[in-house]
Amino acid sequence: MVYQERVERATSGHGDMHDVSRDVARIVGRSHITTGIVNVHVVGSTAAVGTIEFEPGLQRDLPEILDKLMPAGRHYGHEQAWHDGNAHSHLQATTLGPSLSVPVGGGSPILGTWQQIILLECDVKPRQREIVVTVTGE
Amino acid sequence: MVYQERVERATSGHGDMHDVSRDVARIVGRSHITTGIVNVHVVGSTAAVGTIEFEPGLQRDLPEILDKLMPAGRHYGHEQAWHDGNAHSHLQATTLGPSLSVPVGGGSPILGTWQQIILLECDVKPRQREIVVTVTGE
Amino acid sequence: MVYQERVERATSGHGDMHDVSRDVARIVGRSHITTGIVNVHVVGSTAAVGTIEFEPGLQRDLPEILDKLMPAGRHYGHEQAWHDGNAHSHLQATTLGPSLSVPVGGGSPILGTWQQIILLECDVKPRQREIVVTVTGE
Repeated sequence: MVYQERVERATSGHGDMHDVSRDVARIVGRSHITTGIVNVHVVGSTAAVGTIEFEPGLQRDLPEILDKLMPAGRHYGHEQAWHDGNAHSHLQATTLGPSLSVPVGGGSPILGTWQQIILLECDVKPRQREIVVTVTGE
Repeated sequence: MVYQERVERATSGHGDMHDVSRDVARIVGRSHITTGIVNVHVVGSTAAVGTIEFEPGLQRDLPEILDKLMPAGRHYGHEQAWHDGNAHSHLQATTLGPSLSVPVGGGSPILGTWQQIILLECDVKPRQREIVVTVTGE
Repeated sequence: MVYQERVERATSGHGDMHDVSRDVARIVGRSHITTGIVNVHVVGSTAAVGTIEFEPGLQRDLPEILDKLMPAGRHYGHEQAWHDGNAHSHLQATTLGPSLSVPVGGGSPILGTWQQIILLECDVKPRQREIVVTVTGE
């Protein structure tokens, strides 16, 4: 069995983090799949999907450390060709990854109490993001 | 077809790496699924799952480089709120990711000879970890 | 339903990036699965699979930033045991990850226009790489 739905999210720009756990749990519920896997995937190359404890401290810490490790800059090859100021957005998004697969048991995603599914905007401007949620199982 | 089992692992604390390839292979065997995907997911926000050549050198190198890139510190927003000394654990776990999906062929996970599935403890104290292994296919 | 095929790619060595989106799309087409998930997995511990905007700038930027964050060096535990000069290859491959799961809708992988599926060679010499593509769904 397979069930697929899309979720739209408007982000405010670089470093904006959204908790999408409730959206994912509702879609798993509507799928009537009790055991399996749910895949959460963001379309596009400058946003990422992952898990984190969703609280204000880490909402600030994760974008900050990513900017320290992969800072904005004009020296990137991507900038020299495109001049859109978001080479670091691409690098951060690729490193975190665009998708996540979480097990489903008892009709719900299996996550820790302090483990939320997040969308992280890495691009330098507000974006309308599309997340595809696919549930497989029985 | 879907088959799901849980594996428990006691870790000794920050940087403790466990090879769980054999557990995963046994569960795939018990699933009687010959072709498909096996998802390996750790519950919680301060541990990670991935693949590496499991040998003593890299068992030391991976935690060391993660600590160099995302060091412990009191300056994190997470620390200022929670004071539990593990903000870097969260950041490292999110960057590596909590789950991995590996193909199944001929009734086994398809991995290289020197490619093992690992659980990496990122938290600062010993933890009892729960890994959910889900096999889908036929 | 499950469908699995293997793709071979010869890489030129460290930092060589290949766009495998077309291979993956063709395999999804041959699977006759219209809705589901496609898993792309590279066998071995010194190469990675992910998504990026595949253009010459980022083809250079991603390997460069990985080499800055996880540089080659003789000080790694892996080097002291194996002397094969590729400890950083292992660390980079583990951090990016060996596999990716992308949703399938309307018989195709769901990706952004500038979001390609890539194989990144992290090892220090040319390698013959095997990618396993597994489609599940209906």
